[in-house]
Amino acid sequence: MFSFTATYTDLYQLSMAQAYFKSDSHLQDAVFDYYFRSNPFGGGYTIFAGLEDLLQTIESLHFSADDLAYLATQNFPEDFLAYLKTFRFRGRIFSVLEGEVVFPNQPVLRVEGTLIETQLIETLLLNMLNFQSLIATKACRMRWIAGDRALLDFGLRRAQATGGYYASRAAFVGGVNATSNVVAGKNFNIPVAGTMAHSFVQSYDDELEAFRDFAVHRPEGCVLLVDTYDTLRSGVPNAITVAKEMQARGQRLQAIRLDSGDLAYLSRQSRKLLDAAGLEQVQIAASNSLDEHVIKSLQEQGAAIDVYGVGTSLVIGKPNGALDGVYKLVYSNGKPRIKLSESLEKVTLPHAKQVSRLTTADGQWIGADAIGLSDETEIEVMHHPSDPFKRLALSELHQEPLLHEVMANGDITIRLRPLTEIAEYCQQRFAKLPQEYKRFDNPHRYKVGLSTTLKQAQEALIKAHKA
Amino acid sequence: MFSFTATYTDLYQLSMAQAYFKSDSHLQDAVFDYYFRSNPFGGGYTIFAGLEDLLQTIESLHFSADDLAYLATQNFPEDFLAYLKTFRFRGRIFSVLEGEVVFPNQPVLRVEGTLIETQLIETLLLNMLNFQSLIATKACRMRWIAGDRALLDFGLRRAQATGGYYASRAAFVGGVNATSNVVAGKNFNIPVAGTMAHSFVQSYDDELEAFRDFAVHRPEGCVLLVDTYDTLRSGVPNAITVAKEMQARGQRLQAIRLDSGDLAYLSRQSRKLLDAAGLEQVQIAASNSLDEHVIKSLQEQGAAIDVYGVGTSLVIGKPNGALDGVYKLVYSNGKPRIKLSESLEKVTLPHAKQVSRLTTADGQWIGADAIGLSDETEIEVMHHPSDPFKRLALSELHQEPLLHEVMANGDITIRLRPLTEIAEYCQQRFAKLPQEYKRFDNPHRYKVGLSTTLKQAQEALIKAHKA
Repeated sequence: MFSFTATYTDLYQLSMAQAYFKSDSHLQDAVFDYYFRSNPFGGGYTIFAGLEDLLQTIESLHFSADDLAYLATQNFPEDFLAYLKTFRFRGRIFSVLEGEVVFPNQPVLRVEGTLIETQLIETLLLNMLNFQSLIATKACRMRWIAGDRALLDFGLRRAQATGGYYASRAAFVGGVNATSNVVAGKNFNIPVAGTMAHSFVQSYDDELEAFRDFAVHRPEGCVLLVDTYDTLRSGVPNAITVAKEMQARGQRLQAIRLDSGDLAYLSRQSRKLLDAAGLEQVQIAASNSLDEHVIKSLQEQGAAIDVYGVGTSLVIGKPNGALDGVYKLVYSNGKPRIKLSESLEKVTLPHAKQVSRLTTADGQWIGADAIGLSDETEIEVMHHPSDPFKRLALSELHQEPLLHEVMANGDITIRLRPLTEIAEYCQQRFAKLPQEYKRFDNPHRYKVGLSTTLKQAQEALIKAHKA
Repeated sequence: MFSFTATYTDLYQLSMAQAYFKSDSHLQDAVFDYYFRSNPFGGGYTIFAGLEDLLQTIESLHFSADDLAYLATQNFPEDFLAYLKTFRFRGRIFSVLEGEVVFPNQPVLRVEGTLIETQLIETLLLNMLNFQSLIATKACRMRWIAGDRALLDFGLRRAQATGGYYASRAAFVGGVNATSNVVAGKNFNIPVAGTMAHSFVQSYDDELEAFRDFAVHRPEGCVLLVDTYDTLRSGVPNAITVAKEMQARGQRLQAIRLDSGDLAYLSRQSRKLLDAAGLEQVQIAASNSLDEHVIKSLQEQGAAIDVYGVGTSLVIGKPNGALDGVYKLVYSNGKPRIKLSESLEKVTLPHAKQVSRLTTADGQWIGADAIGLSDETEIEVMHHPSDPFKRLALSELHQEPLLHEVMANGDITIRLRPLTEIAEYCQQRFAKLPQEYKRFDNPHRYKVGLSTTLKQAQEALIKAHKA
């Protein structure tokens, strides 16, 4: 685990905090939105993850004595450092629940508090939510295409240093069944899984002898890696020999693993060899640069794979590598705030807001969310964020508010759920998303619209700033 | 900082360790090589980073009481857990120095020790070296193209969770001047830098008032962000007003920052406005999705940018996201070991080895390294790894051995250098790399060849396994 302190931040947060403090505006009220601008992987959705981790970190966030001694060497004045010494986040956070399916340009989380405290948590918040949401989304895409086959996270060795620890957590939220990452398994209560490496086989003079020793000494969940020398002529036949020896001892070889070559071909051939030996119950695991697209292709080719071991592509969220989440000031010192841009789509939405998922009376998602002010109870019409001719009347639809209070006065106000519960929640919510948003190629674009009140508030601020 | 314990690993390392332990082969001697198969970013080189971090972690690596209690719940037997309780790495490590320029398919680091200890550090080693080398390489590419302009790491918010902490370290090794990441600055002694966010400007009713307050309260290294509303009509003119007010107080505005729009155009226009106001000394910083290619384009367009703030692309090593480093058994129980593959280039190189950089008598790198056995003193001829018709006589060349002992009996045997020294070493070594390996498009391919003895040893083992 990483020992987070409040210096887990960008320097400019502290520079701004100093300026707020020195100009006595630091205790002004402020509201920030967290949102992102596009779904990763060219997909039609994003899975929100990292929230419960983040809340626990914020709850105990402070500057250590070590931090303060360091900041004293960086031109920060004494009175400000004295303030930082007492700093605790005492604000309020509203958020969609972890595991929720979310979409671009909607507030996923809202922070309310003093200007200084809301500013000081920005970097930490972005760092944790951007990454875990990226990886949970990647995992969910793999889960979807893999159907009921097992998905294992094998990525730690290629993960971005200790980011891999959080990757394993987020991957489990998104739908992976187990991880090879022992410390993540231990601390987040994720099932752990693993097989053997080529080095194990290589360390013996003989592959069969290696398999035998492994099966004798580690029979539970035994998986034999069959491609060190020659998959079909050596690895699989030797695994079959050992599987039969295990049977004779009342044990079971759980699987063989393929880690190179043409996985579709080799898995089908291996299946035939295993079946011909009466080993129908021995599964076939495959690994080697798998991602959701390779898994899709393997399944289309009728590969005989029961377990997918996914590594690099999962834990680094390839090819994107980052979710483009931002944290924008929308209200402060009693006034709505805006950030302009040459493109209307990038102009921020002022005010504290609520997001409502639109469903039919029987709870079916219709593929649209409406953003209104936080105190709007029922939105009648939703407007396209930039096209003035597009609008939708919501009278027939149910509006499910997505942002819930999760922290008040710096204390967590929700029940923290076991990770398995968050992962189940993710699958429940994802099941409600219509198919056309799930496909990999050109997914349908989920609509996110604005209430009339919000739209007008944004327009008024744009006009005021242009004047 | 992350509190590493020996469960920062893949489960299969522990399963294999158990099997080694139970079959009493765990104390056999073993040698593993760390190497990677391709340079990231389509480039012609890789910067090796993460070593000193890794060595310090390995030196104190152990299983905590908490780890052992957890492993007891995962089917590991008592006698093996008792062994793990006493586990320390007591082996020997040879490595190229941190900051060295390295190339695919050459051993960058070699681990010697008992089979169990060399196996148990694999995941940690790969996790730390793969990532930091990736990021140092990315930073070095940016440093090279940015010339003498300043390069700042602003990436923490989009980094892969706490991977960002190590990204800042590695980026500094590769050539970045400073980081926004406060905790990395503090713990790794990296200069920290930062400006202000849009939220600061937004929190005021008036941009000029925001700039004034910031300049008054944080005058040292003051950088004003000028694109919140309108860069050329509002941001730059307001910054000029404040710069003059600062001048009148005997202070200096260090820079303005552009964060959106056409950076080449806006920087040139801003430069004109600043110069016309007699503010030639005020620098222009730019940020917004910069990478080495964008920086190259900006420089080709004559952008008036003095400082590049680089974020996501640097700290996640876009587009690769991972270096494909591997850790392969090359010797154990008194015998050389090999892993076969359908492609000869992927067959491993057996035996403990040394890598020699070939230079002319006056120390110029010629663009080739030779791999020999670790006890070969002078290599006479080097062979292409797969093409039997390509060879090079080395008689006229100097051979500089790159692998040095860095750990013995589990203790670090080199002086740990301050990070600035490692960064300087990187630039010294990089300066020796001929230009044609540095360009972004189709760089020259650095040659890595094998000594006759090594080549013959590999061929003999391939034959033996094919038989």
